[in-house]
Amino acid sequence: FSHQKKTKNGMMSRAKVLTIDTMNPTVKKVEYAVRGPIVARAVELERELSEGMKKPFSEVIKANIGDAHAMGQQPITFFRQVLALCSYPELLSDSTFPEDAKSRACSILNSCGGNSMGSYSPSQGIESVRQDVARYIERRDGGVPCDPDNIYLTTGASDGIVTMLKLLVCGEGATRAGVMISIPQYPLYSAALAELGAVQINYYLNEEKFWSLDISELQRALDEARLYCNPRALCIINPGNPTGQVQSRECIEDVIRFAAQERLFLMADEVYQDNVYAEGCQFHSFKKVLFEMGPEYSETVELASFHSTSKCYMGECGFRGGYMEIINMDDDVKAQLTKLLSVRLCPPVPGQALMDLVVNPPQPGEPSYERFIKERTATLSTLAEKAKLTEQVLNTVQGISCNPVQGAMYSFPRITIPEKAVKEDMGQQPDMFYCMKMLEETGICLVPGSGFGQREGTYHFRMTILPRTDKLKILLNKVQEFHLKFTQQYS
Amino acid sequence: FSHQKKTKNGMMSRAKVLTIDTMNPTVKKVEYAVRGPIVARAVELERELSEGMKKPFSEVIKANIGDAHAMGQQPITFFRQVLALCSYPELLSDSTFPEDAKSRACSILNSCGGNSMGSYSPSQGIESVRQDVARYIERRDGGVPCDPDNIYLTTGASDGIVTMLKLLVCGEGATRAGVMISIPQYPLYSAALAELGAVQINYYLNEEKFWSLDISELQRALDEARLYCNPRALCIINPGNPTGQVQSRECIEDVIRFAAQERLFLMADEVYQDNVYAEGCQFHSFKKVLFEMGPEYSETVELASFHSTSKCYMGECGFRGGYMEIINMDDDVKAQLTKLLSVRLCPPVPGQALMDLVVNPPQPGEPSYERFIKERTATLSTLAEKAKLTEQVLNTVQGISCNPVQGAMYSFPRITIPEKAVKEDMGQQPDMFYCMKMLEETGICLVPGSGFGQREGTYHFRMTILPRTDKLKILLNKVQEFHLKFTQQYS
Ligand SMILES: Cc1ncc(COP(=O)(O)O)c(C=O)c1O
Ligand SMILES: Cc1ncc(COP(=O)(O)O)c(C=O)c1O
Repeated sequence: FSHQKKTKNGMMSRAKVLTIDTMNPTVKKVEYAVRGPIVARAVELERELSEGMKKPFSEVIKANIGDAHAMGQQPITFFRQVLALCSYPELLSDSTFPEDAKSRACSILNSCGGNSMGSYSPSQGIESVRQDVARYIERRDGGVPCDPDNIYLTTGASDGIVTMLKLLVCGEGATRAGVMISIPQYPLYSAALAELGAVQINYYLNEEKFWSLDISELQRALDEARLYCNPRALCIINPGNPTGQVQSRECIEDVIRFAAQERLFLMADEVYQDNVYAEGCQFHSFKKVLFEMGPEYSETVELASFHSTSKCYMGECGFRGGYMEIINMDDDVKAQLTKLLSVRLCPPVPGQALMDLVVNPPQPGEPSYERFIKERTATLSTLAEKAKLTEQVLNTVQGISCNPVQGAMYSFPRITIPEKAVKEDMGQQPDMFYCMKMLEETGICLVPGSGFGQREGTYHFRMTILPRTDKLKILLNKVQEFHLKFTQQYS
Repeated sequence: FSHQKKTKNGMMSRAKVLTIDTMNPTVKKVEYAVRGPIVARAVELERELSEGMKKPFSEVIKANIGDAHAMGQQPITFFRQVLALCSYPELLSDSTFPEDAKSRACSILNSCGGNSMGSYSPSQGIESVRQDVARYIERRDGGVPCDPDNIYLTTGASDGIVTMLKLLVCGEGATRAGVMISIPQYPLYSAALAELGAVQINYYLNEEKFWSLDISELQRALDEARLYCNPRALCIINPGNPTGQVQSRECIEDVIRFAAQERLFLMADEVYQDNVYAEGCQFHSFKKVLFEMGPEYSETVELASFHSTSKCYMGECGFRGGYMEIINMDDDVKAQLTKLLSVRLCPPVPGQALMDLVVNPPQPGEPSYERFIKERTATLSTLAEKAKLTEQVLNTVQGISCNPVQGAMYSFPRITIPEKAVKEDMGQQPDMFYCMKMLEETGICLVPGSGFGQREGTYHFRMTILPRTDKLKILLNKVQEFHLKFTQQYS
């Protein structure tokens, strides 16, 4: 062979076909901090602890990812009953299951080929589930009509977002497609844009005003970007990850006007639509606001909006359920989208079933209604308490300043890192240095702000509010202690 | 707005941001026949029938896709019991569930964050499932060692295949990455290569010799391709889709030698590994053969092999479970792969659980063992009968010639289409014209050979052997009648 060489032990060895130098270069540019080096180290630490190694802490607390069940949140009983019935339909004759769970399971199974969740669904998703999603959206949006043909079920919201971005990218050099994303952002966006070779156009959220969105900043970012790329889409996350901000109706109107005027495809990531805690805040869907602005907008602005089973009160991340609704999409493009999805056959059917339950939960008068409402309310009100607690405790710490967690599941406080620590970081970002040190000393796993983007010279971390209240208190105390110690050490 | 114009009814209208002309051009090139226009028409026909429209048939029989449960195959009881237990762990105290199902469910749940299938798993998949997969591979391959670190759980095999191809593509113009695929092929490959902008290098299987693979044809295809691209990978489907061919051990050795010599990354699609029916045929995994060829090969040849919950005896397509095993991959590339997967968070956990059961089914002595073996055997022997039946009946038809269905779930017979029909096709491929006409006249839904690729001037269709035996007989008779009528009509 031409590429062989002898190694020390005489074995034949040769250069690999696939190496870091010969692999797809766009994949190398991808970054995803939520599961980056900090998390890898946290997993290692857990293993070391379990093997009896001595650490300055007795457990690793992971506040790096919005993974509710992993932090002890209980699933909604009704949802899991129906999933069990769908998995093993023999249980339909089990009298301990409530009747409404059984009838939901039957109607899901009737929509599956051969009455089995084991058959492929249509690539766009099970038709009856798409109809239920459409009715849910109509109720949510006060009667604004929704066509099930515009609903696509997805493998988590991630899948829908990446698919939409994939349709939008095109061009080379100065006409390369550009996509506007907020800074800070959820890093799926930057990762997908890197992989697709599109231009990431940053607009900065206003930390001084609770991380709200300023149209003038959108305009600045867009005008600059037009000099070197072809801006095509504007992404919004509302309620915000990692910011915890909930957008006002006025802001959404302004964004829609801006998108219309500047001819941008709108992508609204609304996976936290039930996660609104702060008084005076309310979730407004982009779809609803768009339609209330009249036909000048509702008949022209192209919008994709995303939802998921992973967040809200259900937190069912592992099932990878989700949907997207598509408004005013060109018919030929829609046909291309459907074709593209068919290559992957279909989203997971248990995830589709779960999405169906989320949009069609027990109704008043049905046997499971009360329990469902109780469970949902308990989860959401606990989250609201934890949002408040987190903000309050963090703001008592000198050198940490935290905006209110109006919604979603995260706080993104600003931290002061002493000059000496900034200089000491040895090639890491200063906030990575800070978070890694916190992990090693306290066992708390956070994500550095640099993983989401932040204004130069400012530092943050992202912390979920999901740990159980007692653990969250411990966590917040440890963060407090760590920050004081760190500040002293480097002052 | 600059792009507005008035429509007839005076409404404002404007060009869309995203149109067929401005969308991602690589997406437009994607084709996927298994869910193409024929299937869309079949769905329409079903709707028309259900609305009472008169047709020359009373039901649509779909033999277009390997979707076992949709065709009436029953799930394995044990698998579904465990999935129900994992979905709704309250059932663990239900005495009607067998103990082995309960202990499997407990061990799966113990490996899930918060003991819930609703939490995200590690991006590479649940660790204990990867360990079970590794032990399964070792048993299957007669003790050849398998490292769980080389196992990646996936969202169906489709996901693994696309991910591997994504790592491999690179380059522009004459150095663009090329990937060798068989003709006929499973169209996921051509679709993914089109989307990724890689070069598809066709090698033709030998229809005269039961669709086997000739090394001389590989060499021809490779030598020609080297003139205009950078060939990097060689994809093999064994047992074959759509050909139903099972590769001999010698052939696999030759392929491995060829890949080593020509420096190609090997991708072995082995999703039909349990679907071998013909006497004298046996499944040999590429991994096993590679290791038995000695260190010159086993320590150098880069291989990815793919498996799925969708096929074999379980046919659980809707759960989107699968895994890939990766051999001799460069460590830096592996790190990049893990990072890339982390962006999508994780494969669906119920699919991972199902994969775990497939690789770790009931063992002798466990309460569910006998029932499991009975169900598995029944399914596989029915498939074997149907494979034989299909070949036999089709070969009685003048103008149809069908290779033995040695494995997988399909026959891919060659059909003679009269010259007059070839001329009449009106812009369609002649075999598309043939299949569309068959659908309209008989209600039988097949996929034209052109969707998989075939030698110029030859015509085929792909038909699954999955319909229930009684339906399969009806289907085969109808195909026979249709073919005779079609031949007469155009002679
Ligand atoms: C803003 C936002 N969008 C999308 C997602 C993706 O979630 P999934 O793919 O689990 O639906 C997340 C997950 O954390 C998120 O925070
Ligand atoms: C050869 C082959 N590979 C891969 C797949 C993908 O299957 P899945 O993604 O359902 O695992 C199929 C499906 O039919 C197939 O036939």
